[in-house]
Formats: sequence, structure tokens, C-alpha cells
Amino acid sequence: MRGAVLYAPGDVRVEDRPDPTIEEPTDAVIRLAATCVCGSDLWPYRGIEPVNGPSPMGHEYVGIVEEVGRDVHTIKPGQFVVGSFFASDNTCEICRAGYQTSCIHRQPGAPTGAQAQYARIALADGTLVATPDQPDPDLVPGLLAASDVLGTGWFGAVAAGVEPGKTVAVVGDGAVGLLGVLAATQLGAERIIAMSRHEPRQQLAREFGATDIVTERGDEGVARIKDLTDGLGAHSVIEAVGTQESMMQAIRSTRPGGHVGYVGVSHDVRLPGEEMFFSHVHLHGGPAPVRRFLPELIDLVCTRTIDPGKVFDLELPLDEAAEGYRAMDERRAIKTLLRP
Amino acid sequence: MRGAVLYAPGDVRVEDRPDPTIEEPTDAVIRLAATCVCGSDLWPYRGIEPVNGPSPMGHEYVGIVEEVGRDVHTIKPGQFVVGSFFASDNTCEICRAGYQTSCIHRQPGAPTGAQAQYARIALADGTLVATPDQPDPDLVPGLLAASDVLGTGWFGAVAAGVEPGKTVAVVGDGAVGLLGVLAATQLGAERIIAMSRHEPRQQLAREFGATDIVTERGDEGVARIKDLTDGLGAHSVIEAVGTQESMMQAIRSTRPGGHVGYVGVSHDVRLPGEEMFFSHVHLHGGPAPVRRFLPELIDLVCTRTIDPGKVFDLELPLDEAAEGYRAMDERRAIKTLLRP
Repeated sequence: MRGAVLYAPGDVRVEDRPDPTIEEPTDAVIRLAATCVCGSDLWPYRGIEPVNGPSPMGHEYVGIVEEVGRDVHTIKPGQFVVGSFFASDNTCEICRAGYQTSCIHRQPGAPTGAQAQYARIALADGTLVATPDQPDPDLVPGLLAASDVLGTGWFGAVAAGVEPGKTVAVVGDGAVGLLGVLAATQLGAERIIAMSRHEPRQQLAREFGATDIVTERGDEGVARIKDLTDGLGAHSVIEAVGTQESMMQAIRSTRPGGHVGYVGVSHDVRLPGEEMFFSHVHLHGGPAPVRRFLPELIDLVCTRTIDPGKVFDLELPLDEAAEGYRAMDERRAIKTLLRP
Repeated sequence: MRGAVLYAPGDVRVEDRPDPTIEEPTDAVIRLAATCVCGSDLWPYRGIEPVNGPSPMGHEYVGIVEEVGRDVHTIKPGQFVVGSFFASDNTCEICRAGYQTSCIHRQPGAPTGAQAQYARIALADGTLVATPDQPDPDLVPGLLAASDVLGTGWFGAVAAGVEPGKTVAVVGDGAVGLLGVLAATQLGAERIIAMSRHEPRQQLAREFGATDIVTERGDEGVARIKDLTDGLGAHSVIEAVGTQESMMQAIRSTRPGGHVGYVGVSHDVRLPGEEMFFSHVHLHGGPAPVRRFLPELIDLVCTRTIDPGKVFDLELPLDEAAEGYRAMDERRAIKTLLRP
């Protein structure tokens, strides 16, 4: 099969790779309908995370089940399925509490890489969720978004305590931040302030339900949020970047007693204890337990209630993955969909 | 009047000071029935926080209202009242959300110092809660505990998401940690693990409802908590110390999806972002909004449902405050009650 491999920062190649096979009796092999490039793929692509030898890439996937292991009982060949970046048994105490990304049997969801024609999926019964029917082709991008960025933005909104009547701010205008806006809308937020200085992203934020746009960052951005909220700060802030600056911007934009939901993967962040203490914020986040939300998100996409697939503003054949990475790295594209 | 003043680390003196008077129309002046030394008073006493000139001490108080300003309408002279360390209007949006210690009009609760015969209390209507009747003398220590350490332990338990069926761990065996145990018992925790290596404090923790005692600290303490919880960690951890070690011990003792409630005033703490991210814990805390809980806590004390006054294991006349500080500094006493 064809699959994308990262050899070194900036060096992604699509090449012939071995077809994945069932290795554990709980595995499935799927044929990908679509896959994509994640903001988190850019960390090693940019050399900020180390690249330790050639690495198969991709962890967002939807597709048709080709084959299942002998211990897979609920997932069947021929089903259209959505999974996410970590495999989970979905039965342990941690999974049952809704934290499948900390499952006691957690492992990479697509260890053979999902930017490929086929992928092996671990713990298939726990990890994969089948759609009710074969989806119409135009729904595939939305289902692919559910696999990671929608589920992550949704978790950010839930972790930020978004509910009807709340004022929400979103730090980060990548696909996750934009889908955090969409999630906040669905969860009933009264006011949603998107922090973005990029016109096309502001536009999409508004389509997803943002009521206000703040272009300032850092302390100036915080001051603007305070201006918009009677000097108090937002009730709920979704952090979707993962840097020291973005985390502090999120914490300082939140009113006392409010909630920060942080889903940007933390890089070199150190939170100052005394400021946290006196901020009175609730802080929660981490790798989104997308599996918790998948049944609901699949339903919202399949009933055409939401269209998270709009975050894909570039679509390329899998063989052109390198251009997909470049376009995202240069912020020419929000998110690249790849057709295997 | 007589009042305690900290001149320098280790140098507390009780001396003649001016009687407090009504300065703002929202003030009250109270005659103290009892006051006490707080664990947080030990930070400047030990020189860990700077002492900027002679400072009147004390912020925990119960007593009889002597006089009120012309804009005080609900609190009346002659009432027995309980207040806490910050004054709050109890009407702003932040107060109404239950975060009175971040009130938009927040100020020190007893600016003239509460380790004294009399104290001026700011924003009396918002800050003070009257008991239903004049309490029996044996209830006074419990009401004094409600003023700070019980309210703080209670907030720690609430912030840690304690509820029926949960396993709770408590880091810190000072008065706040011990009353965190009592709060967890009242909130219905199934199992309460107190972390303490001091026999008399272990004893009191058991009286307050602890089911298990862990004497190890740091990584070993974390390993013992994991041993006791099927390898997962506690659902809820109350942190009542405020150091880097105690915060990390609390975070690492919590299962993914669990809650850390931190009420130890942070000193030189830096929380590592990546570890926080992958820990999946909820983090909440800060200066306890004792005012939120006072009506309930006063009721529990006055109906003799709980006896938080047991944390006072040393009682001295106000004039011997210096010995009260020394005894706590040397860990000879858990908490010193002072009789003005």
C-alpha cells in the first residue's frame, strides 16, 4: 500500500509500505475513505519534537472494515467506522468514567499510520464506532473531523464547562479552536469570542457561531476579553494551542470560578502556582477522550446538524501529502484532507 | 486594647493598640470571643514571606458585634457572628457564583488584626454570618474553626469533587488537611486516606473519619495510594500544604479524570504543563470562599453534628500568643486557640 512516512523535519514522503495485517486477535484492518494532517503532526515536522528515524504518520481516520481478529465481536467487515488517536478497551474503570485516552490498556490507535491506504486499528471493539449506514460521500469529511479535531474541540468545550448562558472565549484559531467554537454553539453558549487575527479563520469562526472576534493576543487580548465581560473575564475558555503564552492568555481571560479547558498539547509550559491559586479558575484538559463523544458526534454529522468538515480547506491525493504538510506549516491551509 | 503584632520573623508581641472604630459606613466592630493562629501565619513568622514592618496579626475570628456603621442593615449589635479572612459584598456576580474570596470589592476581613480583643470588620453585611442564638461556650472553638480552617478544608473537598462512593486522599495533616478529612466524611466519601506521619494527627484524622493512613511521602506516598486504589489513584485528592512536592504528590495520586482540590497557599510552585496535560486531572482551588459555606457549617456546629474545634490542641490567653506561634512552628501543637 501507499503510506506517508516522516524521515526528518520537513521531509514527508509517500512510499510503498507493507499492507497491515491482523497482529492481535483484537485488531481490525480498515481501508481508509479519507485521512488528514493534524496540527500535532506539525510539531515533529517542524523539528520541535524529535524525529527518531522514519515514522509512519497519521492518526485521524475513517474507513471500511476489511478484516477483524477472532476476538472482535461488535465491529464487522463492511462497516463504515470512525476511530481516534488512542485505542482503548472502553470497558475499564477509567474508560467508563469517560477518559478513554487514559484507558489502562491505552495504545496508539493506528500504529501503522493512518495517512495510508490501509491501517491496523488496535482494540477494535473498544476503539471504533460504526456509522448507522454507509454515509453519503459529502459526509465523509465531517466524520473524519469527528475522529480528532471535532472530538478535541468538543472536549475542550466540555472541560471548560460550557453550558447555556455562558460566555466562552477560544484561544487558538486552528481546526481544534474553530471546532471548539462549533462545540460551544451546540452546547448552548450565549456568547462566543474567537481570538484570531486571520481573516479566513475569523470567517469560519463566525460560520460556526462566534459572536465576537478579538484580534489581540497576550495581555492585550486578555484586556479585550475583560472589556467584553464587565471586567470579569469569560466563564469558559478553551485553550487550543499549548504554549506558555496561550495557556496564560487562557487562564487570565477566565473569571474567578470559571473554567479553562485546555486541549493544545503542552510544550514547555510551566504554570505559576501562586497565580493559579489566586486566579480561582478550574483547569482541566489533556488528550481528548474522543471515544466518549463519538456516538453523539457521528449522529450530529449524519443528521446534518453540524458540518465540521468545513475545516478542511485543502484536499489532496494521499501521494501529495508533502504539499499538505507544507500548506499547513505555512498557514496557507487550516487543515488538509488526504484521499488515499 | 491588647493585640498581637509581628515585628520580625520569630518576634510576635502582644501589646496595647488603639481600639478599632467604625471607619467606613459598612464596617462593624466586634469583641472577640476567641481567635487563633493560622498555618499561613507561620509563613511570615518563619521568614519565608517577608515581614514589612510591624504587622497586626490574625484573620480568624468569632465574637459579639459591638457597633455597626450606618450602612450595615442585616448585622446588629449583640449578635454572635462568624466571619473569615477576606471581606466580600456577597452581592456581586462573582460572590453570587460562590467565589466571595474573589469578590470585586474584596479586602482583608479584619484589617486591624484578629488576634486582639476587638476587630474592625469590613463590609459587615456581606462578610459576617450570625449564629441563630448565643452559642454555648463549648461550641465557640468549632465556630472559630468554621471561620477559616474548616471552611478551607471544606472547599478543598468540594473542589476535589468529593461525593458519595469516592475514594479521597488528603495531602497535609495540619488543621486544614484534618478538617478536609472531616469534610470528606460529611460529603459521603466511601474511603478517606490521610497522609500523615504524626501519631496524634493520625489519631485525629481517624476521629474525623479517615479509613486509611499513609505515612510515606513524595513518590513513595504516590505508590502507596496507587496500591490502595487498584493502581488507578484516588478519585479526589485534597492538597493542604502548598509546596511543589505536595502539589506533585497530590496530582500524581489522582486517577485520570479525577479531581485535585488545592487549598495550601502556593509557594514557589511551578506545575509542569506536559505532565498536567497527560494526567487528565481536574485542578481547582485557591483561597477558600469560606463565606459560601458558613451558613451550612454554622448549622452543623450548632446542631453538634460535627466538632471541628478538636483541631485546637492548645489554648492560651491572648497575651501568650508568642508561645502559641512557637508551639505550632515546632509542630508541638496542631492549632492554638487564643482567649482575648
